Amino acid sequence: MAAVIDLSSVGLVDHHAHGIFGQPPRTLDEFRGLFSESPDPRQWPHVASGVTYRRAIKVLAETLGCDPDEQAVYERRLATDQDEYASSFLRSTGTELLLVDDGYPPPGTGPDWRRMGELAGCESRPIMRIERVAEDALDGTFAEFRERVREEVASARRRGFVGLKSIAAYRTGLDIAQPDPVGAEDAFRAAASAKRLEAKPLLELALWDALEANEPDPLPVQFHAGFGDSDLFLPRVQPGYLKPLIERFEDTPFVLLHCYPYVREAGWLAHVYGRVFFDLSLTIPHVSRPAAAVREALELAPFSKLLYASDAARTPELYFLAASWWREALATVLPELLGDDAEEAGRAILRENARQLYRLGG
Amino acid sequence: MAAVIDLSSVGLVDHHAHGIFGQPPRTLDEFRGLFSESPDPRQWPHVASGVTYRRAIKVLAETLGCDPDEQAVYERRLATDQDEYASSFLRSTGTELLLVDDGYPPPGTGPDWRRMGELAGCESRPIMRIERVAEDALDGTFAEFRERVREEVASARRRGFVGLKSIAAYRTGLDIAQPDPVGAEDAFRAAASAKRLEAKPLLELALWDALEANEPDPLPVQFHAGFGDSDLFLPRVQPGYLKPLIERFEDTPFVLLHCYPYVREAGWLAHVYGRVFFDLSLTIPHVSRPAAAVREALELAPFSKLLYASDAARTPELYFLAASWWREALATVLPELLGDDAEEAGRAILRENARQLYRLGG
Amino acid sequence: MAAVIDLSSVGLVDHHAHGIFGQPPRTLDEFRGLFSESPDPRQWPHVASGVTYRRAIKVLAETLGCDPDEQAVYERRLATDQDEYASSFLRSTGTELLLVDDGYPPPGTGPDWRRMGELAGCESRPIMRIERVAEDALDGTFAEFRERVREEVASARRRGFVGLKSIAAYRTGLDIAQPDPVGAEDAFRAAASAKRLEAKPLLELALWDALEANEPDPLPVQFHAGFGDSDLFLPRVQPGYLKPLIERFEDTPFVLLHCYPYVREAGWLAHVYGRVFFDLSLTIPHVSRPAAAVREALELAPFSKLLYASDAARTPELYFLAASWWREALATVLPELLGDDAEEAGRAILRENARQLYRLGG
Repeated sequence: MAAVIDLSSVGLVDHHAHGIFGQPPRTLDEFRGLFSESPDPRQWPHVASGVTYRRAIKVLAETLGCDPDEQAVYERRLATDQDEYASSFLRSTGTELLLVDDGYPPPGTGPDWRRMGELAGCESRPIMRIERVAEDALDGTFAEFRERVREEVASARRRGFVGLKSIAAYRTGLDIAQPDPVGAEDAFRAAASAKRLEAKPLLELALWDALEANEPDPLPVQFHAGFGDSDLFLPRVQPGYLKPLIERFEDTPFVLLHCYPYVREAGWLAHVYGRVFFDLSLTIPHVSRPAAAVREALELAPFSKLLYASDAARTPELYFLAASWWREALATVLPELLGDDAEEAGRAILRENARQLYRLGG
Repeated sequence: MAAVIDLSSVGLVDHHAHGIFGQPPRTLDEFRGLFSESPDPRQWPHVASGVTYRRAIKVLAETLGCDPDEQAVYERRLATDQDEYASSFLRSTGTELLLVDDGYPPPGTGPDWRRMGELAGCESRPIMRIERVAEDALDGTFAEFRERVREEVASARRRGFVGLKSIAAYRTGLDIAQPDPVGAEDAFRAAASAKRLEAKPLLELALWDALEANEPDPLPVQFHAGFGDSDLFLPRVQPGYLKPLIERFEDTPFVLLHCYPYVREAGWLAHVYGRVFFDLSLTIPHVSRPAAAVREALELAPFSKLLYASDAARTPELYFLAASWWREALATVLPELLGDDAEEAGRAILRENARQLYRLGG
Repeated sequence: MAAVIDLSSVGLVDHHAHGIFGQPPRTLDEFRGLFSESPDPRQWPHVASGVTYRRAIKVLAETLGCDPDEQAVYERRLATDQDEYASSFLRSTGTELLLVDDGYPPPGTGPDWRRMGELAGCESRPIMRIERVAEDALDGTFAEFRERVREEVASARRRGFVGLKSIAAYRTGLDIAQPDPVGAEDAFRAAASAKRLEAKPLLELALWDALEANEPDPLPVQFHAGFGDSDLFLPRVQPGYLKPLIERFEDTPFVLLHCYPYVREAGWLAHVYGRVFFDLSLTIPHVSRPAAAVREALELAPFSKLLYASDAARTPELYFLAASWWREALATVLPELLGDDAEEAGRAILRENARQLYRLGG
């Protein structure tokens, strides 16, 4: 009944990626840790009994032409030149355009967006992380801080950025209140000496300033929602909390990232709000049932609102696994849901929705 | 293994429907918009890439005998007399009894419950919307307001109403606090001049008054839970928030409407509370996988607690799609779950549970 | 593709069970009620139309060798000696070790952990319920109360307890605040006269004291999360609320119990935190689709973090149903997810993870 479709030749637009960085893993446990969102070394032995990790090892071993066990894959990795290893996995994804977060890895600690394009053999563009901009602006007065955030964002499109991004979910949650300039100013001095934004009113003011500065010809703004690493307080990252912001900045495209396990909530937002989009980055490649996530995503949301992304960082295998498993999940699910329209939907999700949303031509 | 069952001849009791109203769509985009919960015209072009919409077009084209594309369906609609068009879809559902919300469409702007019965060729009964009653009562003093809400509700059964309904989820959420008469009175003047209840304490007092007035021989009270249009703040419409109300009014039957994506939570409430019932209206026909919703609904809840409803409004195709897809989902899922008992369960969900709950005879 | 595995010979470690207690059911409706989490007699007739109940009756009838209807099963139960009936079902589970909550049934009202081991024909160990200890300590001064909780917990391992347990989810929720000794002391007198802990600050202080006393060589601490009986306020039992506690007591193993419908959230916690484990007790045997719950559990969590448990209490059939349906669900799902590694995962979940976590040898 369901047609089989081939999406392998569709060039991907990965609208949410990071530079690879960090030293190669020094132990097998460190290697395992790269395939999880856990910063806790006590978790890494457990990664070896993860469904996704076991599957990854098999896929990677096949690609690398080594024995299908973690030790063999790990050794192959150590034995290969890092750039060559990275480049080979990046190129195998069939990505034609990478949009790269300019805040993680922290500037200077890993390849920037230009270098990522070189490694992947494709075009690339930067995404401006609002909190990175704000933390860079902590060395002046509070008024200068606000002015600098506004200026950086207002000139972002002109300077080649194709989107903005906020990590509010990883700091204080998505229950973002109306700005409170007095509370923000109170928190400013502590933030300036710590060189880090953590106080809720200060984060919210910076975000609000940025969104206002972005209003005239708005760039899409990416927000994490749902799972990620242990910085998150899950009860405050349900995508539905963004409603007041979405309605206040009604012409700004909002792009929800990750979304698991609140994929259905994200799908509802993408169903009712004309300017809300979402992806399943991180969810794919991390969950063991990517097809189940895609099915839930398309229960309410039109396929013109769902975007491919990897959210890969730190280790090159994740770019490859994300691309493989997204393609596989879409090739499984779209024919079930859409019959003959499956290929149209696949192209939209993997490539065209992002090209249109971020005005990337093509 | 799973028996095939035929539920096509079971006469439906649709316990939660609305009058059709509004002008025919003036553009294809307006037509698309009718098949979503989005009031945002920028969303309507996206509706064309919705899984459910694409499926709907095929089903409608087959029923209408036209080409299987949206333009053909849209044109057929425009070319047909509105009442005839509506009546034909309504009659095709096999509905034997319609319970119609008396607050939407607003009285006088569309067909009332009697007219809906005529169009559908079946019996019909009215459901009293508590907020409609309260907003009608804003033209006197605060004391008169309270008195009128109480009187209308207390006499509702005698005057032919078979249930009550609250739209608290669409206004301030399901975290309904103990009544605060002072706060409510403070908000009363503003509500009276706006002719609209929006202040949380006033809404809550009206609701509490209504539930108290309903206590002696309680009518079932319907509450939205979960998704709907963009008025909703999703983090406050989880059905679990109703616990204090359910326990305070322990003899009142509560009927949770929609429930997606919190279907499992609703199922738990229907499992632990003797007087809690629920439906998957709006969920079916809007989600692209109705069978998945039914499966989750019946994970914990007995089938004697789940009720068929369409929540259809505005456009007649939705009554037909809801009925078709509910029947289809039940015919798929019930044999998987219940084997030889599937048909008993199907009849209960489509017809008998509602007849018993609302004391409709038959 | 998926290998068929046989887990029937794996001896179970049930890390979360209770004593059976109470009189035999006096009516068929009381019998039905034993198969639900509802204390509401008005719910019990509905239990007869529950998917899980209907399935249970078939399985029980087959085991008992009687007609496959509830009346026959009920009569068989009444006709059999209670201990013999219990023992026969307990022994049929293939359990080799039972960890038994010492707070429910309340001490003296049912068989304790030793007697449960005798009935089941296996080893058993006690789990200390923190709130039971605290309620036993309400007869002195506030300072004595705190001291006693600390002492009981600090000496628990020495006295043979293998774990701790908190029922915070059933009292005030998992949004457990920093301790407030002043607020707790204010609430102490009322708690002492009621012989029951209900005030949030007092519960939280007792819990915090217990967790601190447990720190030197921490026993695993079990917390309910997700569904249970109607004492729960579902919006405050999402497992994600435990984040501050998990991070504060970073060396303490936390074990999340039940988890439905927040299985995916629990899986995320078990993915990012090295010391978080979880089970699907109560979920299995109560939900009608155990395999779906297992699939969601293993989307993010390694199989080394998931533990078998029944949470059975009150009626012996539940121990048997939990064991049967867990085995069946694992035998279905693990080969799908893990291919040749399915049996390793099955043994880990049913037996070895608990043996390691609770230091049970074997």
